[in-house]
Amino acid sequence: MTRVGVCLSGCGVNDGSEIHESVITLLALDRAGAEVVFMAPDIDQMHVVDHRTGEPIPGEVRNVLVESARIARGEIRDVAEVQASDLDALIFPGGFGAALNLCTFGVDGPTCTVHPAVAQLTRAVHQAGKPIGAMCIAPALMAKIFEGVTAVNLTIGTDAATAEAIGALGARHTSCPVTEFVVDRENKLVTTPAYMLAQRISEAAEGIEKMVKTVLEMA
Amino acid sequence: MTRVGVCLSGCGVNDGSEIHESVITLLALDRAGAEVVFMAPDIDQMHVVDHRTGEPIPGEVRNVLVESARIARGEIRDVAEVQASDLDALIFPGGFGAALNLCTFGVDGPTCTVHPAVAQLTRAVHQAGKPIGAMCIAPALMAKIFEGVTAVNLTIGTDAATAEAIGALGARHTSCPVTEFVVDRENKLVTTPAYMLAQRISEAAEGIEKMVKTVLEMA
Repeated sequence: MTRVGVCLSGCGVNDGSEIHESVITLLALDRAGAEVVFMAPDIDQMHVVDHRTGEPIPGEVRNVLVESARIARGEIRDVAEVQASDLDALIFPGGFGAALNLCTFGVDGPTCTVHPAVAQLTRAVHQAGKPIGAMCIAPALMAKIFEGVTAVNLTIGTDAATAEAIGALGARHTSCPVTEFVVDRENKLVTTPAYMLAQRISEAAEGIEKMVKTVLEMA
Repeated sequence: MTRVGVCLSGCGVNDGSEIHESVITLLALDRAGAEVVFMAPDIDQMHVVDHRTGEPIPGEVRNVLVESARIARGEIRDVAEVQASDLDALIFPGGFGAALNLCTFGVDGPTCTVHPAVAQLTRAVHQAGKPIGAMCIAPALMAKIFEGVTAVNLTIGTDAATAEAIGALGARHTSCPVTEFVVDRENKLVTTPAYMLAQRISEAAEGIEKMVKTVLEMA
């Protein structure tokens, strides 16, 4: 059975993992017969956002691993305890959490920092020749992690400013419609725009399902 | 375009809506071309559970409508402001929130109370001859709402104690495997066990997708 890590960053598009993307990924993996290993860093979220108003809630603190456990129904590991040898592939859903909790790209752009265990595991999976999938804003995290390591080809859709920031990290951005995906066969990196472009959940799902299928074919 | 209300109860299986069930419902509705109207009551959750440990967090307070907005990506209405005439059908995902926040069945059993606006809207949708779907533990909520109104036929899977409590409310429980569903054609009520029985997300999805299809056919 193919074991696929899914690295979460909280629970909710504005301060954590995009929930639809995470569940669509899980469902596609399960339907393909893969075993999912959920993981997240054991750190506080950068902030907590009221998803009804879109405004941050001053003083509120939530833990990324604990909130991610809502999506994982409790079956989740601290990313710091996961080894590349535990996995056959690794996938990153999007949501602001990928750009605020797993790294600081959403605040700092190309000069951002990445959570050490997330960076270490991702590079180790890559070095082991195993495929990586990323969607929505998470490809920016991949660009930072592989800065100075290898020139990855990826997509975050069509957003010009984000594409430019990704270029500054030494990655190549390819524009891509929401229902499609970009494959970097040399680096075994598969990316799809998801909610960077999706107007409806079914649009995001089409691209994510194709991405998951391609990751599993490479695993 | 068919407008389908989806009534949420928070964000997370242990104290709110079951996230997988909610997203699978949304995706099935969107793929069928239906318009989804998310709603939830504007009340505090009964409690907040750490989904990593499964333990309640003493003193923590979260609002059902605000947390449900995480699943709805901000597009959600207070259930008290939704009219039956706004909808062609109404669906209830499960999760403990359906039995702790939308009603008190999870604490009080057959003598539970139901959030007034949830009960009122559900009865109005039924009286208007529009179909209702419910999954997981949410059929118990339906049994309470229709107690003394009409004898509904439904399923929560195979759990004997819950089935007995449902019987005490005047409803008829039919055992049902996770990948199937039960239709009460007279009352236009369609139910499926989902995570009352599911061991894998793909099992829950199969039953939910069939339930959604049947609700839309009745709408």
